[in-house]
This record gives sequence, structure tokens and C-alpha cells, in this order.
Amino acid sequence: MAIAYPHLIPAEKPASMESSLSSLSPPVILTQDELKKIAAYKAVEFVESGMVLGLGTGSTAKHAVDRIAELLHQGKLKNIIGVPTSKKTHEQAVSLGIPLSDLDTHPVLDLAIDGADEVDPFLNLVKGRGGSLLREKMVESVCKKFVVIVDESKLVSHLGGSGLAMPVEIVPFCWKFTAKRLQELFEDSGCVAKLRTCLEKNQPFVTDNGNYIVDLYFKKDIGDLKVANDAILRLAGVVEHGMFLDMATTVIVAGELGVAIKHKH
Amino acid sequence: MAIAYPHLIPAEKPASMESSLSSLSPPVILTQDELKKIAAYKAVEFVESGMVLGLGTGSTAKHAVDRIAELLHQGKLKNIIGVPTSKKTHEQAVSLGIPLSDLDTHPVLDLAIDGADEVDPFLNLVKGRGGSLLREKMVESVCKKFVVIVDESKLVSHLGGSGLAMPVEIVPFCWKFTAKRLQELFEDSGCVAKLRTCLEKNQPFVTDNGNYIVDLYFKKDIGDLKVANDAILRLAGVVEHGMFLDMATTVIVAGELGVAIKHKH
Repeated sequence: MAIAYPHLIPAEKPASMESSLSSLSPPVILTQDELKKIAAYKAVEFVESGMVLGLGTGSTAKHAVDRIAELLHQGKLKNIIGVPTSKKTHEQAVSLGIPLSDLDTHPVLDLAIDGADEVDPFLNLVKGRGGSLLREKMVESVCKKFVVIVDESKLVSHLGGSGLAMPVEIVPFCWKFTAKRLQELFEDSGCVAKLRTCLEKNQPFVTDNGNYIVDLYFKKDIGDLKVANDAILRLAGVVEHGMFLDMATTVIVAGELGVAIKHKH
Repeated sequence: MAIAYPHLIPAEKPASMESSLSSLSPPVILTQDELKKIAAYKAVEFVESGMVLGLGTGSTAKHAVDRIAELLHQGKLKNIIGVPTSKKTHEQAVSLGIPLSDLDTHPVLDLAIDGADEVDPFLNLVKGRGGSLLREKMVESVCKKFVVIVDESKLVSHLGGSGLAMPVEIVPFCWKFTAKRLQELFEDSGCVAKLRTCLEKNQPFVTDNGNYIVDLYFKKDIGDLKVANDAILRLAGVVEHGMFLDMATTVIVAGELGVAIKHKH
């Protein structure tokens, strides 16, 4: 998807982005991935030497991890310790030479940077379309600052409002039963629950924790999110869900008109 | 442990128990296991032909499963379908020839019979010292009737009050971190969290779902159980816990003075 992006330089030179905002360069067309990269690079400006960092998962977070490694190698950042939120990010960080640790050793983190699938006006999120919601939530619930990076297509008026999946991680045991109970829980919102499968093999998608994902699709607003949060978690068989409520401290949105930064009040 | 049991016949003849209650036979000493068996046999009196039954796990529930099989083979019960709450109970039921199904096929059950580790005055339970709490909770949360069978040593004034373990099933990923957060959650109750290990190998105990168990020990009352319930479930990394609140409809207690039956109001 290409988006008109009049006042921003291409993502290849994000370091000079702020000055370019004031110039009147001709409009350029940036892809969604370039927007993600701009948001990611902006987020990495929050990183300081010596920090313990939560490293997110997904196409947007990947740019942030790349950028952190780049600044480490340039000597512009020092003594960073990364805590990856998935096996995939672990592999990426190892390949880039970022020193890593885990929550057992570092139970409190300075900052996490991660993407999101939906962001509502109160900075509540849907995450986990990439399947790493549990480890992401474990890491990001103990960060002093949690910076979320998205392109503007992720902004919604209410969670579930994109019409795309709200993932729930469940135990494989009697998954149909748990999927049915989830769907019944949100019957009034026109919920449809579907087991996530691997496209190639038509087998259930299996998370890093050996569980399945049921994707919930809503026709209507699900109402009070805290009530929904507890109702989902109370179902035996549910391990975790993709709503991240009251967790993001900052959201960086890259869009047509530039980069917007929203802070939690 | 042997308990004086003045008005009851030995557990070998539970079918004639009620008549024996009115006789004045001399006191007999029954073991804890015999008390469990008496409670279990009493619970099976609630079973009717044609029912879909949740089959519990543990030393007490095992007696109930044995008794159900016995009545099936005697032709006194017919068309029973069992839904086991663990791999172990599944094996027991298969070996006894009880027809089995699962929650995917039978998402609503008529009756479940299971033991408990603690029972409070409101019929709230602690379960899962046997390690099957998740599957037990999945099954027993969709039963029209849930009959709990215990010997009187399981009665407590408040959950956690026995000083024994309150189990929490957690994902293996960064289990130390999750154990630490659980302990901090109940800091005011003097909570100590310990990973459950297999006695022989000194390895983590692994549940039927591939998860670990953290046992919580409390020095003081944990307060409002519903608040505690949600607080535990909100911790990312927690899969389920052993408090079964507002689930039991009947508790059968075998003790020194006979069998007491408590119904939920």
C-alpha cells in the first residue's frame, strides 16, 4: 500500500527527519513498510545507553531491532541488554550481535519497543496477530516505558474496530470447546471465533509456548474492555489474549502527514 | 491417619451405609482412604443412567470412577458417558470400560464428581495438588451439578488456611519471573511461591498441558477471593489457578461422625 507523504524525507534518512519536516520538499510516496521504519527509527531515539530493553516482534518491531543494532555497532549506544519477546526476535537479535537476557534475570525493564495491530484513542492495543502475544505481554507489563510503533492504518476508534483478528492464546486440549465459549462470551458483539492455522500445512498454528491461537472477529464494539479482559481470562483453557490495556506509555504513528507522538496521560 | 468413626460401617459395605447409621454398632476406626471411599460412593448415588459425567482426578475421585464402572457392569447404570479430567483418569476409565467423550463433543455435562484439597464454608475450593487443575476446571465449569467429595481433614475456615499448597499453572517460559510476580501479588499474606518438582528427578513437574506448577503458601488470609482470582489471572504467564470459586453445588464430607452433605444455596 502506498500512501502520500508530503513533508517527510524517505525512510533511508530518518536521522535528519525532524529538520526535513520544516522544509517544503515535494510530496513523496512511501510504502507501508517505509512508514513502519520511520516510526521504528523514531522510537529508537528513546533508547539510552545502559538500558535493559524489551525487543518486540513483527514487521515494525524488526526495524527497531535492526536500528538498535546499527547504533550499537556505530558506538552511539552502549551497554544495551535486550529481552526478546519471541523466538524469532531472539534469533534476529543474536544474528545482529545484541547482548540478550531474559525476565528471570531482568524482571524489570527500562523500555520496550513493539508494534501493534490496533491502537484505540486511549492507547489500548490489540497485539498478537504475529502470534507472540503472551511473551510480549509478559515483557511489556514490566517495562517502565512501553513505546508502540505503528503506521496510521492501525488507528481504530475502538478495539476490534478494524474487523481484523483479536487473538486469544488457548491450550490445545479441547480447543473447539474453548473457541465455542469465547464466541458465546461475545455473542452480543456478533463474535466469530476461528482457529488460526498455518497456511501451508492447514495445521493449527502453534505458539512459542506450544499453544493454539483462536482469532476473534467482532461485528460490534465489545463494550467495557476491562470487563472483557477479565471475562476472557476467567475461561479455563485461555492462556492470554491480545488486548493490551493501559500498558502503552507512548504511541508513535507514522502517516501521510508525518510522525505523530501520543503520550499516555 | 486413622479417625474414630462410631456410627458407620467399614467402607467395604457402603451400599448398606444408611441403614447402618441408625444402628448402634460399636465404634470402628477408618483410615483416611476409607473415608474418601465412603464420600465417593455417596456421590455416585447422584449419578443417573443417561448422564454425561465429568470424571475427577486424584485419590478420592478414583474411588468414584471405580464405583461408576462397578454399577455399569452390574447393569444398575446405563448409557453413561464419561469426560475425564486428566490423562490419568482417562487411562483408569478406559481400563474399566467406561465409554468416554470430551468437551469438544459434549460441551455441557450433567454432573461431575471430584475431590478437593480445601473446602471453605461457602463451598469454594482449592484443587490441583494432583496437578490436573486446568482440565478439571474446564470440565467442572460446564457441569449442571458439581459434587465434591472429601474427608473432613479438607475443611478450612478460609482458602489457603490449611497451610498447604495453592497451585497455579504457568507457562514454562521465564517461570522464575512469574513465580516472583505471584509471590509479590500476595506479599501482604506472607506468600511463598515454590516451583513444584518431581520428587524422583528433581525436575519441574510438567502438567498434562506441558506447563509448570507454582505452589503458593500463605501465612495469612488472602482476603476477597474474587479479587485474588482476577489478579492472578491478569498476570501474563499464568494459565490457571487452583481456586474453584462458586463452582461446587454439593460437597460430601466423610468424617468421624458420619457423612455430611452440604448444598450450595
